[in-house]
Amino acid sequence: MRTVAIVGVGLIGGSFGLALRQAGFPGSILGVSSPGTIEGAIRCGAIDQGVSLEEAAGTADLVFLAQPIYGIIATIEKLKPILGRHTLVTDAGSTKQVITEAARAFLPAGNFLGGHPMAGGEKRGVEAGRADLFQGRRWILDVNEANADNSTTRVLRKWIAEFGANEVVMDAATHDRLVAWASHLPQLASTALASAIQDSMPNARAVAGPGLLDMTRLALSSWDLWNDILETNKPEVAAALDGYIAKLQALRSDMGREFANGSGFAAELRK
Amino acid sequence: MRTVAIVGVGLIGGSFGLALRQAGFPGSILGVSSPGTIEGAIRCGAIDQGVSLEEAAGTADLVFLAQPIYGIIATIEKLKPILGRHTLVTDAGSTKQVITEAARAFLPAGNFLGGHPMAGGEKRGVEAGRADLFQGRRWILDVNEANADNSTTRVLRKWIAEFGANEVVMDAATHDRLVAWASHLPQLASTALASAIQDSMPNARAVAGPGLLDMTRLALSSWDLWNDILETNKPEVAAALDGYIAKLQALRSDMGREFANGSGFAAELRK
Repeated sequence: MRTVAIVGVGLIGGSFGLALRQAGFPGSILGVSSPGTIEGAIRCGAIDQGVSLEEAAGTADLVFLAQPIYGIIATIEKLKPILGRHTLVTDAGSTKQVITEAARAFLPAGNFLGGHPMAGGEKRGVEAGRADLFQGRRWILDVNEANADNSTTRVLRKWIAEFGANEVVMDAATHDRLVAWASHLPQLASTALASAIQDSMPNARAVAGPGLLDMTRLALSSWDLWNDILETNKPEVAAALDGYIAKLQALRSDMGREFANGSGFAAELRK
Repeated sequence: MRTVAIVGVGLIGGSFGLALRQAGFPGSILGVSSPGTIEGAIRCGAIDQGVSLEEAAGTADLVFLAQPIYGIIATIEKLKPILGRHTLVTDAGSTKQVITEAARAFLPAGNFLGGHPMAGGEKRGVEAGRADLFQGRRWILDVNEANADNSTTRVLRKWIAEFGANEVVMDAATHDRLVAWASHLPQLASTALASAIQDSMPNARAVAGPGLLDMTRLALSSWDLWNDILETNKPEVAAALDGYIAKLQALRSDMGREFANGSGFAAELRK
């Protein structure tokens, strides 16, 4: 793997470039983004130079798509006529099924490896990028029969391990079902909590403690980040919301049982 | 204030003793608890000696009740025939109305000052006590016409300020309404989230990230801590749960609006 192209050089894309450099990647790192972003990304050391998507698709061994979900899908369609024969395309989209379907429609099966580095932060943009963003975090990869033997797949997996990330192999449908509960539902639970207090009892701020701060941290996320995620995982998110609402109703009738159940899960999660 | 008696020398009671000592309180600190707890509390330096409730009530200038809520209520009833004429009773109960009603029934109005230091921790017991537990935390006090001029009220308020805590004066009904939203609802939201995932999608642990960890920290709390709290604030907690469930349902129909509302509140909370 001599040349990597990052499409969408924001927090995740920029951190990918920084992590590659810190882990000792000696090749060339290209960026595809707006001129202002490219300038900032070069200044941060996340990429070496900006190029067009055509140039990236024709010269890179690996194309890393780190845009919002619908941006990734649009890029996959554009890549169809211009992608190099051996170039591997991977992505960082937070849902995997719609992206995987787009890849199935437009790219050869052996040239696409769906991915989801489970890392992020409250700040956005390449300026917030960090070489250690992926350290200790899970990195979901949809390794399958078609893409497993691509030589760039093997090299990418090695670099992901070098970043200190924990690779988890999982297909797109399983991924989307599990993140609906582990990521999308917690986001909605936090947003709903903050919004309910804002509407019904804003004075509760006067007695807020660390518990409320923890429970409203995710609510700081903005809609433009989440719009694509929730839109592309609707049935799973709806099922998770239903399960959560039913559980809140059950809490009223048997608080003791739910407490034991909840604290058991919370403790397991920390093992 | 020469003598303080702490009834229930656990995390909060023990930390009160340690905080007094660290702030330079020169008097005597008595403890009322089981023999094993008294021994540990003396070893930690949280109290000087263990005494009976009768002795504490007759000799202390301040009696600090730091038991679970129903324990505080039972102690208030026991104090009626034995409390010294000038002794001030305060408490650390997490709901204030039922305790305030008990105090109104059994103690002279000028001898009771309801309180709620909004501090705690996952670990319990005097061994987990810390002199700085109250630092930077709110300490609700139900200062009113009857108790404001008690000389021990004035001295207690001075020590609370010395601990680095932020005094907030609030009556019992307002307190219980606000904590239902700022404290009890977040607890139930966290417990319900952990319990729902445990029941419906336990494999979601495989993709858990820091967001889910934040959102399930409160779920580690055990029912025996929360039983009294929720039992003594039922109507307010039910109203908060209703508001939260309605908001989760509203999220489905207009996620964008709720995101803006939720992130606005979350940002305000951090100002």
